[in-house]
Amino acid sequence: MMLSSASLIQPIPSLLVVEDSNEDFEALQRFLRRSPIAITIQHCMTGDQALAFLYRTGRYSDHESAPRPGLIVLDLNLPGTDGREVLRRIKQDDSLKTIPVVVFTTSNNPKDVEDCYQYGVNSYIVKPINFAQLKRDIQILIDYWFEVATLPGSQKPPSPQASDAQ
Amino acid sequence: MMLSSASLIQPIPSLLVVEDSNEDFEALQRFLRRSPIAITIQHCMTGDQALAFLYRTGRYSDHESAPRPGLIVLDLNLPGTDGREVLRRIKQDDSLKTIPVVVFTTSNNPKDVEDCYQYGVNSYIVKPINFAQLKRDIQILIDYWFEVATLPGSQKPPSPQASDAQ
Repeated sequence: MMLSSASLIQPIPSLLVVEDSNEDFEALQRFLRRSPIAITIQHCMTGDQALAFLYRTGRYSDHESAPRPGLIVLDLNLPGTDGREVLRRIKQDDSLKTIPVVVFTTSNNPKDVEDCYQYGVNSYIVKPINFAQLKRDIQILIDYWFEVATLPGSQKPPSPQASDAQ
Repeated sequence: MMLSSASLIQPIPSLLVVEDSNEDFEALQRFLRRSPIAITIQHCMTGDQALAFLYRTGRYSDHESAPRPGLIVLDLNLPGTDGREVLRRIKQDDSLKTIPVVVFTTSNNPKDVEDCYQYGVNSYIVKPINFAQLKRDIQILIDYWFEVATLPGSQKPPSPQASDAQ
């Protein structure tokens, strides 16, 4: 990725997937593993678990078990605190709101789409039912967010030449 | 796109590009024209022109000359009202904030990236200098936002069967 020196170590980007279906998570994980981009994947199965992860409470009270994600992929329909509430909590919190959140859901209800963009979702994707399209969509999602877009805190040093000289 | 009936006409998605460099706009437009997705492209060269377009004031006072964009691609460094201010205005306005805004800029200043995500940008892209990478990034940008993501107001009808029966 245009690194000018091997000494400029970039952190491996981290993805938090909030998804109660193990089947859907495993499909996502399988595609991610085939991707040439090395990404650390974390998985939470409920909204409450995701909030504990993000606020580092309970079982996630140390930094290593809960690194700040570069991107969150969030299902909407979750047991307990649902994805809509998780999204609202993230986007109302100044310390979390800069983490991009992509809603990835079976719901194509226009109210869900509108509400999520009102709450500040970065992007909304309706999970395709067709397997080939699901695979293609996940690939484009990964390419877009981890290769094309710049995530907060992931920038290359603004002046690589200066860094090389250190 | 999984339409169950030819009678369900989808509106052509509209992209507003706010870019003061004609050269950069023309490159973007050239790639867009090669894309298989039909997209209406609008171009504003300054931040003030973009705000007039979005609020339909001055030369944009009728609906036809200023359709509500499905996506905004926004340069940061613009003469007059700059891209940061245009972004803030859009994301503080309940009627405009749901339009996804992608910042597309030469600035890889970490403060710009952080500030834009704080203001609610949907995504931040640093323009690559390399031509082949620029072409690839624009293609992924288009595929992601117009094929993979669901934009507000662009949903397929929630119940195609019911629509067919009408």
